[in-house]
Amino acid sequence: MLDAEDKAALHTPDGVVADSLPFRDEEGYVNPEFVSAVSDAIDALDTERLRLLVDDFHESDLGDLLEALDPEHRPRLIELLGSAFDFTALTEVDEAVREEILEGLETATLAEGVRELDSDDAVTILESLDEEDKAEVLDHLPAVERVALQRSLDYPEGSAGRRMQSELIAVPPFWTVGQTIDYMRDTADLPETFYEIFVIDPAGHLLGAVPLDRLLRSKRPITIQDIMNDDPDRVAATQDQEEVARLFERYNLVSAAVVDEANRLVGVMMVDDIVDVLEEEADADIKQLGGVKSDEELSDTVFYIQRSRFPWLFINMCTALIAANVIQLFEGSLERMVALAVLMPIVASMGGNAGTQTMTVAVRALATRELGRSNAWRIIRREAMVGLLNGMAFALIMGTIAGLWFQSIELGIVIGMALVTVLIFAALGGIFVPLSLNKLGVDPAVSSGPFVTSITDIVGFFAFLGIATAWFHL
Amino acid sequence: MLDAEDKAALHTPDGVVADSLPFRDEEGYVNPEFVSAVSDAIDALDTERLRLLVDDFHESDLGDLLEALDPEHRPRLIELLGSAFDFTALTEVDEAVREEILEGLETATLAEGVRELDSDDAVTILESLDEEDKAEVLDHLPAVERVALQRSLDYPEGSAGRRMQSELIAVPPFWTVGQTIDYMRDTADLPETFYEIFVIDPAGHLLGAVPLDRLLRSKRPITIQDIMNDDPDRVAATQDQEEVARLFERYNLVSAAVVDEANRLVGVMMVDDIVDVLEEEADADIKQLGGVKSDEELSDTVFYIQRSRFPWLFINMCTALIAANVIQLFEGSLERMVALAVLMPIVASMGGNAGTQTMTVAVRALATRELGRSNAWRIIRREAMVGLLNGMAFALIMGTIAGLWFQSIELGIVIGMALVTVLIFAALGGIFVPLSLNKLGVDPAVSSGPFVTSITDIVGFFAFLGIATAWFHL
Repeated sequence: MLDAEDKAALHTPDGVVADSLPFRDEEGYVNPEFVSAVSDAIDALDTERLRLLVDDFHESDLGDLLEALDPEHRPRLIELLGSAFDFTALTEVDEAVREEILEGLETATLAEGVRELDSDDAVTILESLDEEDKAEVLDHLPAVERVALQRSLDYPEGSAGRRMQSELIAVPPFWTVGQTIDYMRDTADLPETFYEIFVIDPAGHLLGAVPLDRLLRSKRPITIQDIMNDDPDRVAATQDQEEVARLFERYNLVSAAVVDEANRLVGVMMVDDIVDVLEEEADADIKQLGGVKSDEELSDTVFYIQRSRFPWLFINMCTALIAANVIQLFEGSLERMVALAVLMPIVASMGGNAGTQTMTVAVRALATRELGRSNAWRIIRREAMVGLLNGMAFALIMGTIAGLWFQSIELGIVIGMALVTVLIFAALGGIFVPLSLNKLGVDPAVSSGPFVTSITDIVGFFAFLGIATAWFHL
Repeated sequence: MLDAEDKAALHTPDGVVADSLPFRDEEGYVNPEFVSAVSDAIDALDTERLRLLVDDFHESDLGDLLEALDPEHRPRLIELLGSAFDFTALTEVDEAVREEILEGLETATLAEGVRELDSDDAVTILESLDEEDKAEVLDHLPAVERVALQRSLDYPEGSAGRRMQSELIAVPPFWTVGQTIDYMRDTADLPETFYEIFVIDPAGHLLGAVPLDRLLRSKRPITIQDIMNDDPDRVAATQDQEEVARLFERYNLVSAAVVDEANRLVGVMMVDDIVDVLEEEADADIKQLGGVKSDEELSDTVFYIQRSRFPWLFINMCTALIAANVIQLFEGSLERMVALAVLMPIVASMGGNAGTQTMTVAVRALATRELGRSNAWRIIRREAMVGLLNGMAFALIMGTIAGLWFQSIELGIVIGMALVTVLIFAALGGIFVPLSLNKLGVDPAVSSGPFVTSITDIVGFFAFLGIATAWFHL
C-alpha cells in the first residue's frame, strides 16, 4: 500500500511508538493524535523525532499535515526539517495557508526550496508571493530556470501556460530510437516523470510526439519520424485550463504538448495537474450552486467568509422582499382566511425545490457540454413534462391533505391548482435561466439560483393567493 | 490540435463539404448541423458518406455523436459502419443509451465488437447486458479473454476489480533491462497503453514496478530488481473505486497495480478511468445536493425522471407541512397582525440560504477528506461566528427596511432578533447535520438538505412569530 496507508496498517492500540502512529485513519481522515505528536515535537524542538515522524512522507501528506497544524507551528516545522522538507508540499495546501507560511520564511530558504521544484510547482509558489519577494526569489535562481519561470508567469492566470511543466524531452526527427534511448540514459537532468517525448525542428516548432511505450517497442535503427505521431495532442499556452481539462477528460490523455501562437513547443501539460483542475472545477460548481464563492477555503478566517457569503444572502434578501410584496397584495385575503398564510410557504417551497432540481441538472450538463443546441429543446420539453406530472401528483396529495386539514375541499382544489402552476414554472425557470445566462456568457453555476428561486417564490405566492382570492371571492 | 478541434478549425461558412463540417463548435458543444448530416446519411443508407463523416473519429466523439442522434438511428449507424465502428465508443455514452443500443444489436456483432476491446471497456459493456446475453457473448470469446472478463465481473460493482484493465506487462525480477526491452519489441500483443511494467514472482505475487521512463534511462545489463520500486502503488481489487480515485488524486498517480487478497497481481488501474470516476463522483455530489438522484442522466425518459425526483419533493412536502404546523400555532397572531404573514417568508428564506451555504461547504469538505476529527471543532466555531456576524448584519438591514415599510420600529427589532436566531441555527444545522450523517455512515450529500431546511424553516417561523407574539402581546 501507499506510505500513509502502510503506517495506518501498522497502527497499534497504544500508538505511542512514532512509527506505529498512523497519519490517517482507515477512512483517509487526518489523525489528530499524529498531529499533536508533531506539535509536541515542534514545541520541544526535537528535530530527530520530527524527521522520524514525517520520514518518507509524500508531499501531499506533508501538505495535509501542514494544514492540520496550528498556524504558528507551520513555518517552524519547515525550519526544523531544513533540507528534509520538500517544498512541493506547499503546492498541496490551500492558498491562504500557503501565503501565510511563505510570509514567515526567509527569502534565501525560499529560493533554495523553489530551486528544487519542477517548474509548474515553482510557478504555483511564486504566484503566492508579492511582486517584491517574487523578484528577489527569481534573482536567486540560475538564469535558465529564471527565464522558464518568467515565461510561465507571463501567461494569464488560469491558462495552460501557468500550469504547464517546462521540463520535457524534445529530439530532432532524424534521430534513431537507439540514439534517443542513449541520450536519455546519458542525460542526468531529465524531467522527473514523462510519458512521451516530443519531436521539434531547429526553430523549436512541434513536429510530433512519441509515447514511451511505442519508443520501447521499436527497434534501435528506426528513426523517430517513422514512429512519431505527427498530429500530437496539443494545447495553446493561452488556453483556459478548464478547457484543457475537458480535452484531457474527453480524449483520455495523460500528457499534451503546450505550444505558443507560432506552434513552438513551450511546455507539457500533465494529467496529475489536470486531475487537480477538474477537482477545482467541480468544487467551484458545487460551492457556487450552494451560494458560496468558489475560492472559499476551509482555512479562511471568519471575517473573510462572512464578507464573502454576505452578497449572496443580500441578493436572496432582495428576492425575498419582492416575494413579500406579492404577499402584501393579498393582505386582505390573508386577514379573511388565515389558512392561506399557513399553507402558502408549502407552495413556494415545493416550487423552489423542483426548480433547483431542474437547474442543477441543467447547470451541470452545460458545464460538461452535454447540453447544447442539439438537444436543448428536447430537454426543455422533457423538464416541462416532468414538472406537469409531478405538479399533478402533488396537487392530488397536497390537495387531499389541505382539504382534510382545513375541512374544505375547495381549499384543496385551490392549492392543487397552484402547485401544478408553480411546478411547471419551476421546471421552465430551472432550464431557461441557466440556458439564457450561458448564452449571455455569464457562468450559470454562479447566478442561476437567485433567479430561479425568485421565479418560484413569486409564481408560488401569486398563484396560490391569487387563485384563492378569485375562488373564494376574498 | 485534436481531431474534432481540427475539423472545427476547417469550418467554412457554407459548411456543405463533409470534411469541413465541424462536429463541435468552438466552445466544444456538439454541432446540430453535423448531427443532421449524419442522420441524413443513415436514412439514405449512404455508407460511404457516413464513413467519410466519422472518419478517424475519437471514440469519445463517436459516443457523443451516438447520444446526439435519434434513438432509432443509433443501432443503424453501428450496423452501417460495420467494422469501421469502434465499440469503445459505447463505453462513452450514458448507461440508458448503451442499454438501448445493445438491445438492438445481434449477439454475433456484439461478441465481435467486444473481442476487440480492452478488458475494462469490455466489462463496461458486459455489465449493461442481461444475464442471458452476457453468457452468450462470453461464449463467443476465446478462453483466455473469457476467464479474465469473468474474473473482473466477479468483483463487486464499483470496485477497482471492475474498472481495472487486465492487459499488463509483468516480468520476473532477474530479467535485465535489455531482456525486457527486447521482449516488448518482439511481443505483438502488448496492452495498448502502459506507463509502468510490473515485477512478479512465479506464483504471480507483486514484487515491484518499474516506470517506463526509468526503464528507458537504465543501461541494458542492469537487472530489473535493481531499478524496481519495491513498494509500488497498489490497490485491492475489492476496494471501492472512489477510494482508489482519492489515492490517485492525493498521490498524483497515473497507474497502480491491482492485487487480490493474496497480493497476486490481477490488473492495473489507469488514470483515465480515474478521471471518469472523479467526474462521476463530483457529478453525484452536485446532483444530490440539488435533490436529484446521482444516476439521473440527460437521456432518461420523462417518466423515469418524474419518478426519481418525486421522493425528494415528497420529503420536502413533509418538512414544509411541519413548518406549516408551526405557523398554525400562531394563527391568532397572524390574524391580528397581517404584516407578520408578509415578512415571515423572508426570515425562513434567509435561514434556508445561510444553512445551505454552510452545508455545501461541509458536505464537500467531508467528501474530499478535508474536514475530519482534527478540525471539526474549529470549523463549527467558525461557522457559528459567521452566522452570528451575518445575522447581526442582516438584522440591521432588514430591521431598518421592515421598520420603515410598516412604520414600526418595534417590528424592525422583532425581525432583527429573529434573523440573528435563525442564522446561528442555520450555521449550526448546516455543519452538524452533515457531520452527524457522516458519522452514522449515511452519505451527507444525499440527506443533509431536507434536515437543514426543516431546521431553518421551523426555527425561522417559530423565532419570528414567537418573538412577535411575546413582544406585541398578541
